[in-house]
Parts: sequence; structure tokens; C-alpha cells
Amino acid sequence: MRFEEKQIFSRKCTPSTLMRKYAVLTKKLANLWIISMKNIVTVGGGTGSYTLLRGLKKYNDIHINAIVSMADDGGSTGRLRDELGVLPPGDVRQCLVALSEHTETVRKLMNYRFEEGSLTGHNFGNIFLAALEKVAGTFASGVSVAGEILKIKGEVIPVTEDIATLAIKLKNGDILIGENSINHGNVQSFGVESIYFENDVRLNRHARDAIMHADLIVLGPGNLYCSLLPNLIVNGFKEALKDSRAKIVIPINLTNKKEHTENWGVSDYVNEIEKIIDRKVDIILINNNSPSKEQIELYKIKEGDGVMVLNNMNDARILEKDLLSQEIINFDKSDTVQEIRSFIRHNSDKLAKEIISLL
Amino acid sequence: MRFEEKQIFSRKCTPSTLMRKYAVLTKKLANLWIISMKNIVTVGGGTGSYTLLRGLKKYNDIHINAIVSMADDGGSTGRLRDELGVLPPGDVRQCLVALSEHTETVRKLMNYRFEEGSLTGHNFGNIFLAALEKVAGTFASGVSVAGEILKIKGEVIPVTEDIATLAIKLKNGDILIGENSINHGNVQSFGVESIYFENDVRLNRHARDAIMHADLIVLGPGNLYCSLLPNLIVNGFKEALKDSRAKIVIPINLTNKKEHTENWGVSDYVNEIEKIIDRKVDIILINNNSPSKEQIELYKIKEGDGVMVLNNMNDARILEKDLLSQEIINFDKSDTVQEIRSFIRHNSDKLAKEIISLL
Repeated sequence: MRFEEKQIFSRKCTPSTLMRKYAVLTKKLANLWIISMKNIVTVGGGTGSYTLLRGLKKYNDIHINAIVSMADDGGSTGRLRDELGVLPPGDVRQCLVALSEHTETVRKLMNYRFEEGSLTGHNFGNIFLAALEKVAGTFASGVSVAGEILKIKGEVIPVTEDIATLAIKLKNGDILIGENSINHGNVQSFGVESIYFENDVRLNRHARDAIMHADLIVLGPGNLYCSLLPNLIVNGFKEALKDSRAKIVIPINLTNKKEHTENWGVSDYVNEIEKIIDRKVDIILINNNSPSKEQIELYKIKEGDGVMVLNNMNDARILEKDLLSQEIINFDKSDTVQEIRSFIRHNSDKLAKEIISLL
Repeated sequence: MRFEEKQIFSRKCTPSTLMRKYAVLTKKLANLWIISMKNIVTVGGGTGSYTLLRGLKKYNDIHINAIVSMADDGGSTGRLRDELGVLPPGDVRQCLVALSEHTETVRKLMNYRFEEGSLTGHNFGNIFLAALEKVAGTFASGVSVAGEILKIKGEVIPVTEDIATLAIKLKNGDILIGENSINHGNVQSFGVESIYFENDVRLNRHARDAIMHADLIVLGPGNLYCSLLPNLIVNGFKEALKDSRAKIVIPINLTNKKEHTENWGVSDYVNEIEKIIDRKVDIILINNNSPSKEQIELYKIKEGDGVMVLNNMNDARILEKDLLSQEIINFDKSDTVQEIRSFIRHNSDKLAKEIISLL
């Protein structure tokens, strides 16, 4: 590069020659820049991925591929899936919003929920993705066009292009079918025998490529049974993970979910994830800052007594950092992302900073 | 500018100084470029504006302001207006699509009509603008954000921010209320006594600014009673037109509309428009190429015998050019713009070329 700079700046050039050469140099620099970028893959869906991606978006020298769960069958997402036969757009929408470089108005638009007339209950962003699937031919290409329209940094990749019906078999033999009933059901009292898809759900080729080229793969944070595991159990996912040279980090959830993971400690999450991906992770990222008593009390009302995820492990792979958000949340009815955001949660910037430090 | 170029290129500079100076120069050039651009204002709505704007978009050295009628109360537009209390998005949508620099997929998306489930009959672009009005606070600011998302060249400006209920009083005393009933009604057999809004509909301030700074104002082409006149009769429109120094051109429609303007000639259009704006126009742009016999016969089935607009004027202001499209139309159900596009119509590029030549 130094040689070319000399070439350009040492000779006497006319302005137009100089500008042309300058453009060539700029392009070469841009290509070098892209090649030298580190690749981060995030795996999840919902609020956890939203929080992480919002933080990662601010770093210019990384490329982000957000792999997103496709098991959602509730609410506006479920209605569109049933009525129009489209893939579930909800989780993808949140990741697109997180990575969008557009203004706040666009973020609000994507999360806007109609409250009158025949559109009541529908979320605009979901309608947007449903229409794009119809127009672009496949959900994945629709998501790609959506990324272009929303000027996103990086890419959002549906983990699969197959319709995915999630199921959990409990140890008493009962089976819960569908992400929505699992999310609202009691899966803990009898214990989980297995989590699986009712049909053959294969890894999207682009998701595999992203995993293969990753420098760092982040599994979570997020709802274990409804956001994270529905990615990991997709056919081909664990094989891709084994073939990849990337470091794997799991940012452990701050809180447990009632009737799903009550009283779980860090080791329970690690064991569950490692059992499913059939390999060890490289880094276990946990928070060491304490929420206020008031925050915890508020949380217990909704999620029960065993709500805080405590560290019950002594492991060299553990990285303890302050990852806690201090922000006070103003609920906004038109904003579903905020509605489902919990009181005790990760701070986007703190989380992203620690993830980046692992590169 | 020459002096500054000398300053930059004659001295010995370090690369970083050179790049900084280059950036300053680029910005100055860009500002000069914007100031030196000619301003074109188009006035209309629907297919006519769509055709014209698609052609004008290709010229880099002009700034386009598309003023759009807000009287539409039919179809998906009308449903959203009634159910959500939003302003009618249909005509604005078509202008946004015409000026968008996005891909074909985005154009298809904006015109996509849902055909299943609870969204049946709704047009995606209309839903998009309705949600944006809710999120951005006003229809005009929603349209402005839409322009940004759709990467449009120029601006789309609703002629008014008031709810506008169009009415036509016939010479027999009957009154037709609403753009939709006027569009499908017989206004010609008894003759039009007057066309007006039922309420006070005032010119949008941005529309006035655009008219005041215009070099050229294009009235039409398009549906006379349902697209063009609903702009011209807005309170303040004709006053703005009088205060503007711009040349005014009217591209005369190629065909007449059944039960609206059957058997009209060029002079009828000119008289009707000049009566309403209360001043003379500068240029009357008419087509001198003939559609095929087959095209005319096809057209007569729908629009009756007096379908072709013939030139019955001898006027120095007339400019006769070949403006006719030779394209064969493939109808596409999901594309409402094409659905309502007529067989005999203006060619975007030919029309734009003649408009540009008037600058």
C-alpha cells in the first residue's frame, strides 16, 4: 500500500487523474478493510439478541451475522404464519431493528402494533416481512431485501427456511407442541425429556457459511427453550459448530424463567447447552454486578423466588464482568420489544464490549 | 472555484491534508450543485404522475417536488382512512414508488396486495404509510420518512394535511360526494356546475414553498376530476401559482374518460384548467403520434367512442411531440399500478424528455 501511495502523491498529476487514482486507492483500502474485519455470529432471537446486537452495531471493524430462531408461532407472527403461510417474522424483525442504522422513527415503525380496524393486533414489521416473503419468493431473500431497506449493519439469517414446529417431551410422557404453548406452559415440574422439531428442520446454507467463517460465535443470551435451543437443535447446526474454528462464548442469562428454569445456576445453563451442541464452549460470560433489592423484588412477583441465576461453578472458562443495565424502562404500548423487555437485563454496550474483547 | 483548486493541488501536501482539503472541496461542489439545480414541481396523483415521475427520476441535475392529491377515498386507501383515521395513502404511494431508487422488489412490495387472511384487499404500501403516519405524528412527516426509507429522488408532498372530501355539483342540482363515487359516477350527462371540497382544505405549507421555488410546474397528466383538479381547488393553490415565477406546462391527456370527458378535445382541458387556476398556462404539451387501430378499438370497449383527445386548438403555446408508449402491458395481479394503467398512455422517457427541454 505504501508503494501505491508514493506513486499517487509523488508525481505531478492533473486534478482529474489524481481523483481517479484516489478512487482506486479508496476501493482497495475498502476491500482490505472488509477482509481484515473479524466475523461475529450471534445465535438467538427475541429480546436477548436485540440487546446484544444493538451494542455490537456500534463497532465498525466487525462483520455481524445474526442467526435467528424460526420457531415462533404466537401472536401477530402466528396469525401471519397461519393465514398467509409465511415463515414467522417476529424474531427476525427484532434483529433487523437492532441492526438498522435508520432513525428512531423507523425502529418505532417496525414495532408498531395496529390497534384499530381490520389490522388490529398486527405488528407492522411482521406485515412488512410477510409481504416481502411473498414478493421476493422466499423468506430468506425477503429478509435480505428488508436488511437493505432498513440499512442494517451486517446480516440477519433465519436459522432455517423450513416451517419449524417446536416440541418438548416431558419426563411424564406429556408433549407440549408449538413455541407459544411451550413459552406459556410448565415444562419444569416434570422435567424435560427432550426438545425437538416435529418435522425435519434443516440448517439454512447461509447460516452454515456464517458459522464456518466466524471468528467468534455467541450463543444467547435469551429465552432458553424458546429462543436459543430452537437454533441449536436444527439439523446440521451442531455439525457446523464442530467444523468451525470459532471461539464459542455463552453469555449466561441474568434471570431464570418461571416454570422453565427456576432456581437454575450457571452450571445448569452450561450443561444444557453443551449437551445439545455436543461439545464444550470456550468462554462462559457472567455478570458480577447486583441488581437493586427493589429490582429483584419486582422481578420475583412475575418470575418466582429462584429468579436470579447464581454462579455455582468454578471453571477457568468463566469470565465475570459487570454486564448489568441500570436503565429505568418506560413502557411504550406501541413498542413490543420494550413490552417484553425485563426489568433486570443486560446493558447493550457493556455486553458488546466484553464480547468484542474476546476477538 | 478555480482559485481553490489551485490552492489544493499546487502545494506540496501530506496525504492526510490533501484528503481533508479534498473533502472540503467536494462539499462545496455538492452545495453549488444543489443550488444550480433546476426545480420541477409536478401536480397530480395516480397513474399520470407515476408515469411522469418515473421518467423525470432519471435526470440528475433537477430537483423534483411531486405534489399529490389527497382526495382518494376508495379501496384499500378508503378502508385505512375510515378504520384508522389516517390520510389517504394511495396516490402518495404511487409517487413514492415512481421516485424510489430501490430495486424492482421494493416497487413490487409497495404495490403488493394481500389476498388471504385478515389482511385481504389491503395494499402493503398503504399499510406502510398508515403506520408511518401513526408513528411519525403527521401524514406529511410520515411521507418524508417513507421517502428516506425508499431512497426517493426528490420529495413527495401531500397537497394538503386536511381530510379532504371531494364533491361535484351537477347542473341538474345533484351532488356527488367522495372521490370514489365521482370516479365511478356519470358527471358528464348533466354537466359539472362546480367541483369543491365539502370542508376547508388548505394548501400544505411545503407545497406552497415548492411552487414558489419552482422553475417549471407540470399540471397533470391524469384523471381530471379525481387526480388533477383536487389539487388545483385546494385553498391557496391558485394564489401560490400566481405568485410563482415558474413556467406552467400542461401535458394533455391522451384519452378521455367515459362519462367524465367523452369527446373532449385539447381546448376543453385547457379551458377547464385555466378556469380553475384563473390564469393562462405557458405551454400545452400534446402528443402527435397515433396509437394503432387495435389499441383504439380495445380502448373504445371500456371508454366509449369519444376516447381519443383530438387537437381542436390553434395556439402558439402548443408543443406537439411524440409522447406515446409502444410498450405491451403484462398485467400483474399484485401490482395495482399496472392494473389501472391504460392501454394508450404516455411513454415515461419521451414525456420526461420534453418536460426537461422546457427548463
